[in-house]
Amino acid sequence: MAMVPIPSLFSLSFSLRHFFVLSLAFNVTLILRLMLFHQTQPFAVTNSNTRLLISSSPPSNRVINLDHGDPRVYERFWRQTGDKSTIVIPGWQFMSYFSDGSNICWFLEAEFAREVVRLHKVVGNAVTEGRHIVVGTGSSQLFLAALYALSPNDAPQPISVVCASPYYSSYPSMTDHLKSGLYKWAGDAESFDKEGPYIELVTSPNNPDGHVRRSKVNKSQGFLVHDLAYYWPQYTPISAPADHDLTLFTVSKSTGHAGMRIGWALVKDEEVAKKMTKFIELNTIGVSKDSQVRAAKVLRAVSDSREQGNSKDSESFFKFSHKLMASRWKQLRLVVDRSGLFSLPKFSPAFCTFFNQVLEPQPAFVWLKCEGNVVDCESFLRGHNILTRSGIHFGVSPKYVRISMLDTDDNFNQFLDRLSAIQSR
Amino acid sequence: MAMVPIPSLFSLSFSLRHFFVLSLAFNVTLILRLMLFHQTQPFAVTNSNTRLLISSSPPSNRVINLDHGDPRVYERFWRQTGDKSTIVIPGWQFMSYFSDGSNICWFLEAEFAREVVRLHKVVGNAVTEGRHIVVGTGSSQLFLAALYALSPNDAPQPISVVCASPYYSSYPSMTDHLKSGLYKWAGDAESFDKEGPYIELVTSPNNPDGHVRRSKVNKSQGFLVHDLAYYWPQYTPISAPADHDLTLFTVSKSTGHAGMRIGWALVKDEEVAKKMTKFIELNTIGVSKDSQVRAAKVLRAVSDSREQGNSKDSESFFKFSHKLMASRWKQLRLVVDRSGLFSLPKFSPAFCTFFNQVLEPQPAFVWLKCEGNVVDCESFLRGHNILTRSGIHFGVSPKYVRISMLDTDDNFNQFLDRLSAIQSR
Repeated sequence: MAMVPIPSLFSLSFSLRHFFVLSLAFNVTLILRLMLFHQTQPFAVTNSNTRLLISSSPPSNRVINLDHGDPRVYERFWRQTGDKSTIVIPGWQFMSYFSDGSNICWFLEAEFAREVVRLHKVVGNAVTEGRHIVVGTGSSQLFLAALYALSPNDAPQPISVVCASPYYSSYPSMTDHLKSGLYKWAGDAESFDKEGPYIELVTSPNNPDGHVRRSKVNKSQGFLVHDLAYYWPQYTPISAPADHDLTLFTVSKSTGHAGMRIGWALVKDEEVAKKMTKFIELNTIGVSKDSQVRAAKVLRAVSDSREQGNSKDSESFFKFSHKLMASRWKQLRLVVDRSGLFSLPKFSPAFCTFFNQVLEPQPAFVWLKCEGNVVDCESFLRGHNILTRSGIHFGVSPKYVRISMLDTDDNFNQFLDRLSAIQSR
Repeated sequence: MAMVPIPSLFSLSFSLRHFFVLSLAFNVTLILRLMLFHQTQPFAVTNSNTRLLISSSPPSNRVINLDHGDPRVYERFWRQTGDKSTIVIPGWQFMSYFSDGSNICWFLEAEFAREVVRLHKVVGNAVTEGRHIVVGTGSSQLFLAALYALSPNDAPQPISVVCASPYYSSYPSMTDHLKSGLYKWAGDAESFDKEGPYIELVTSPNNPDGHVRRSKVNKSQGFLVHDLAYYWPQYTPISAPADHDLTLFTVSKSTGHAGMRIGWALVKDEEVAKKMTKFIELNTIGVSKDSQVRAAKVLRAVSDSREQGNSKDSESFFKFSHKLMASRWKQLRLVVDRSGLFSLPKFSPAFCTFFNQVLEPQPAFVWLKCEGNVVDCESFLRGHNILTRSGIHFGVSPKYVRISMLDTDDNFNQFLDRLSAIQSR
């Protein structure tokens, strides 16, 4: 096992105090490694052996894991809502595989579907008229269902799956892990020039960099999958209701309920909706009823909170989350601006139909670039006990990293403190 | 669209009354078809266009759908348990992707894992010591995770997946629907004679026929997956704790909570458990926390009901379900025995360590054979508005059908009435 890398940039200017802090960090890391040696790295793509946020470690040395986008920031809102978002399920309910045999998506709970339609109307971020709703075990399952549904059945070669880089780091492995003969990852959409049918993934706002996106490949035989996980008012100005053939959403990023594993697709074509449903049938024979019912309750609470306005008892979810993201981005910009070491993407403000004003994007992830001589930004930050995801996993240079903006207040503040400490050196 | 087939066997002995009933049935079917024309066939493999149980139809003509194994029979028990199996989840709980980062299966709820271990101890149907528990979105997802985990990464050819026929009808399509380069369905284990590594599925008691099974292929390079979904006291005598490398269970068939989509695998090899976890991460980024917590509560209620014995307030779940299955099988045998048209599998009684007595198997499905001239048993029963699943989907003759024994009392009774009516002709 290699030591925690010490960036050469700073190795010359070490004071004794710096050496002491680093040596302590090294020892803590070593202990952590021994403790965690037996385990796999949960839900992360980096090769770091230092995996976990151990909250019992001294605050200044513990590892801050911002590699994944666990949306823990919203917990405070949901604590405030009290019973409005509580579900009670007796043992005899929702025992059947079926929700509604007359629906194409026969495992879709009607209550959940109703709240999805209502929330899109309240937010104005997607057209639901003339769409079939397909529920999935998170939008990951729906992404796979879409690949299955859009792949030609009898093609001699697998269909190409592309996305403009930087693209969501899981797309390549999700597409290729089973070596499917139906579809195959073909990399960056910008450089794609094969003839014939293809699937293009359009993530908007984009994960990792937060930019609003449109399709990049301009060919006739393309199927588009719009992954709009982050097209919600707290992250980006809502410009118009999305009106695409196949659109994916998830509660993980909208309300912060990642543990529910609930996503939904809005699908124009009936045959595509049927094939996506078939995939989920073959994959998991439907989707947890308990989580669908809980998601319905949570979405209802979000819509209600908007419609009831801001009283002491019921703060609007999107006002709460927008304010929170705005505050985090403001603090982050201050820290980054003071430093000459890092840079952030530039965003243009735009009119948000939801908040009825011109607003700046404030993405769920920071797409941070290490400026200057630092070649591997992820290793560099790991040296400061900040776990991030390297740009190489998103199809670009290791000078970039993706950092979650959705973690707990405690972790976010620690992260800012460390970032400040690096640059004040 | 073809008419509902009228079996030629009976077409000569028609009375006017029979004709009237059939004509009525035909018209109802036609209306149903028009009503249901737009939908896919939920969770079924037959080609019938008559899909659904429409309870508003006249009782004697409505379609009884026993094609799938929806475990609705247990609802009554869970209604009796009252609050003991009710869960309450506030909006702020279980928001994270993670359950326990120190566990190989990082999305496994500790509470659920504890109740799995306890229930296996109470029932005596599986060794849990020295096993890793991997939770899945039903055992279907775990089946796919097992294929992924057991397939060699770098083999030039996909590994063969086999199972002795009659095998669970979904195994071939689940294995092959993505045309994976890792694994490939290779049919009946009895006739498998390829050299090299293979995966053998051992379903015991078997779906569809209820027989206790062991591995059939006797070669050195086999990986075994034991699907023990039905190895519970209500279905089969418990002979000993199962002690295999990789064993699958599900709440759908044990407690009847199919809508939860919760299954679990007991896995000996750490690397296999890691790879299965990785599959579920790539497939659905974990498993619904809500359903895991609910499953924990339900499993606890089952274990408690056994340990508290039979009081008026707390009937033992397995006594309840065993009694119920015994009564259904007794009724069914009476009807089948009186008829010369059908036959059932023969089972040997065996000592059950759970009930401490010699008992007969009473499977979750009837594996019914049409004797005599009927070649296509599924079509034959469909002509009597009983939807079943043909033997051809299980790799054997269409003289066989699989019929669910787990549907509602009402449907089961209707089914028996119709079966009696056929033979009393």
